[in-house]
Amino acid sequence: MMELKSSTTFRVRFNEVDSMNITWHGHYVTFFEDAREAFGREYDIDYLTIHREGYYAPLVDIHVEYKSPLIYGDEARIEITYKDCDAAKIIFEYKIFNLRDGKLAAKGSTTQVFMDKDYRLVLYPPDFFIKWKIKNGLREE
Amino acid sequence: MMELKSSTTFRVRFNEVDSMNITWHGHYVTFFEDAREAFGREYDIDYLTIHREGYYAPLVDIHVEYKSPLIYGDEARIEITYKDCDAAKIIFEYKIFNLRDGKLAAKGSTTQVFMDKDYRLVLYPPDFFIKWKIKNGLREE
Amino acid sequence: MMELKSSTTFRVRFNEVDSMNITWHGHYVTFFEDAREAFGREYDIDYLTIHREGYYAPLVDIHVEYKSPLIYGDEARIEITYKDCDAAKIIFEYKIFNLRDGKLAAKGSTTQVFMDKDYRLVLYPPDFFIKWKIKNGLREE
Amino acid sequence: MMELKSSTTFRVRFNEVDSMNITWHGHYVTFFEDAREAFGREYDIDYLTIHREGYYAPLVDIHVEYKSPLIYGDEARIEITYKDCDAAKIIFEYKIFNLRDGKLAAKGSTTQVFMDKDYRLVLYPPDFFIKWKIKNGLREE
Repeated sequence: MMELKSSTTFRVRFNEVDSMNITWHGHYVTFFEDAREAFGREYDIDYLTIHREGYYAPLVDIHVEYKSPLIYGDEARIEITYKDCDAAKIIFEYKIFNLRDGKLAAKGSTTQVFMDKDYRLVLYPPDFFIKWKIKNGLREE
Repeated sequence: MMELKSSTTFRVRFNEVDSMNITWHGHYVTFFEDAREAFGREYDIDYLTIHREGYYAPLVDIHVEYKSPLIYGDEARIEITYKDCDAAKIIFEYKIFNLRDGKLAAKGSTTQVFMDKDYRLVLYPPDFFIKWKIKNGLREE
Repeated sequence: MMELKSSTTFRVRFNEVDSMNITWHGHYVTFFEDAREAFGREYDIDYLTIHREGYYAPLVDIHVEYKSPLIYGDEARIEITYKDCDAAKIIFEYKIFNLRDGKLAAKGSTTQVFMDKDYRLVLYPPDFFIKWKIKNGLREE
Repeated sequence: MMELKSSTTFRVRFNEVDSMNITWHGHYVTFFEDAREAFGREYDIDYLTIHREGYYAPLVDIHVEYKSPLIYGDEARIEITYKDCDAAKIIFEYKIFNLRDGKLAAKGSTTQVFMDKDYRLVLYPPDFFIKWKIKNGLREE
């Protein structure tokens, strides 16, 4: 399967840890979104670009597996991988590594669909998305 | 000064406490907004009503003083008081009491202004707001 | 499979919707936690009880499927179902229904494990958890 | 008055804007905390250092004035200034500038006090804090 990859680093904030001093599980959703936005800016497929093309790309599915806790002050690297498919979907996989000990902290995936400006589900990949795939070597012209 | 009051209760969530087991200070902004929304529903001045009238009411000022910590599981009562003034402003004061010990947990205030749909500041109180004041006995017809 | 159920309602807050006016997907993790805490208070298995027994119960897995958007001001009912299993795990399933139109807004699941106070994974169900199951008719004495 | 300054930049996240496409006011509390943590790492007065010295430094006061909205995708620079005083307090002032147009987006201040490990208020500046002031030229030996 064709893939595109990106990665970014972040530091766990004071307000992200819970009373056990470990990162509250809900914040990983934000870490994933930060990675997705960094990927989008790197590959020209960010929310603003999608919006300018006349679409929204809401999440329809998220899955997170927590492997090893991140504590306050930890630095982490998040790797995001775009998994190409034929459907009108954007599928990403994520891995978060704790830079303190090299351990896998969490992994997961998200699936997004396309909606037009009237909030109707789009069944076929939009033209701009096909062009984006071609430009990034995921599909032949 | 003419006032209108409302109050509501809430319970501190697990994800709202920090590693010291006390409520992270940033969440009080949400507690204030919850109180403001409850007030808005009670007195017909909620965000959706304001929006239907053609206005936004963004915050331009918030002040919070923290007096005594709320810990996980605490129930609290938040009192919100509308402080009437002649300007095109909505001013609220807030007090949060810990129901476990009766102590004042925090107090504060917010100021909102009116903007029209083009995001321009509105210098005079909108008609719907004047009518709202009359209806609530804050102003004579 | 033996099950225990609980349900609670909530209203979508202004700060929970995004620029498309629909509830940001990350907040569903909080909705799930709110349901879990309400379940815990109803069935005496809340975080504080678990903690008093000498354990933590961190999440190791969360899955959310988004079916239909919740918009600002919507009221919703969240149903939480405890799915009993023999392992040292707490598994919940969730369904969120939009009370405006009765539609399923989202569904999902979480898995929690037990850790002792030294943050070591507990491989067998703790005594207090076995007693809790018996008390709730999930297991014979 | 003696001052120490630091600054950092950030980008407004998708999940930080509201339905008006402007940054929800509550997130500025996090922006302030991010700046405070960056300052702390730069000047060796971060939460972990304070904690190792046997103290907490909870906020007792926050004030934010909103001047001009930050929208999704905007980059901003936050300037944080430590304002020295004789009391056992840590006072910071903040200014956030929108890098898109150079405008002042918001300004504000926070006050922190010291508590010992038993959560008792500390009335005199702790030794490590006095040494920190001397090291940073805020006080003579």
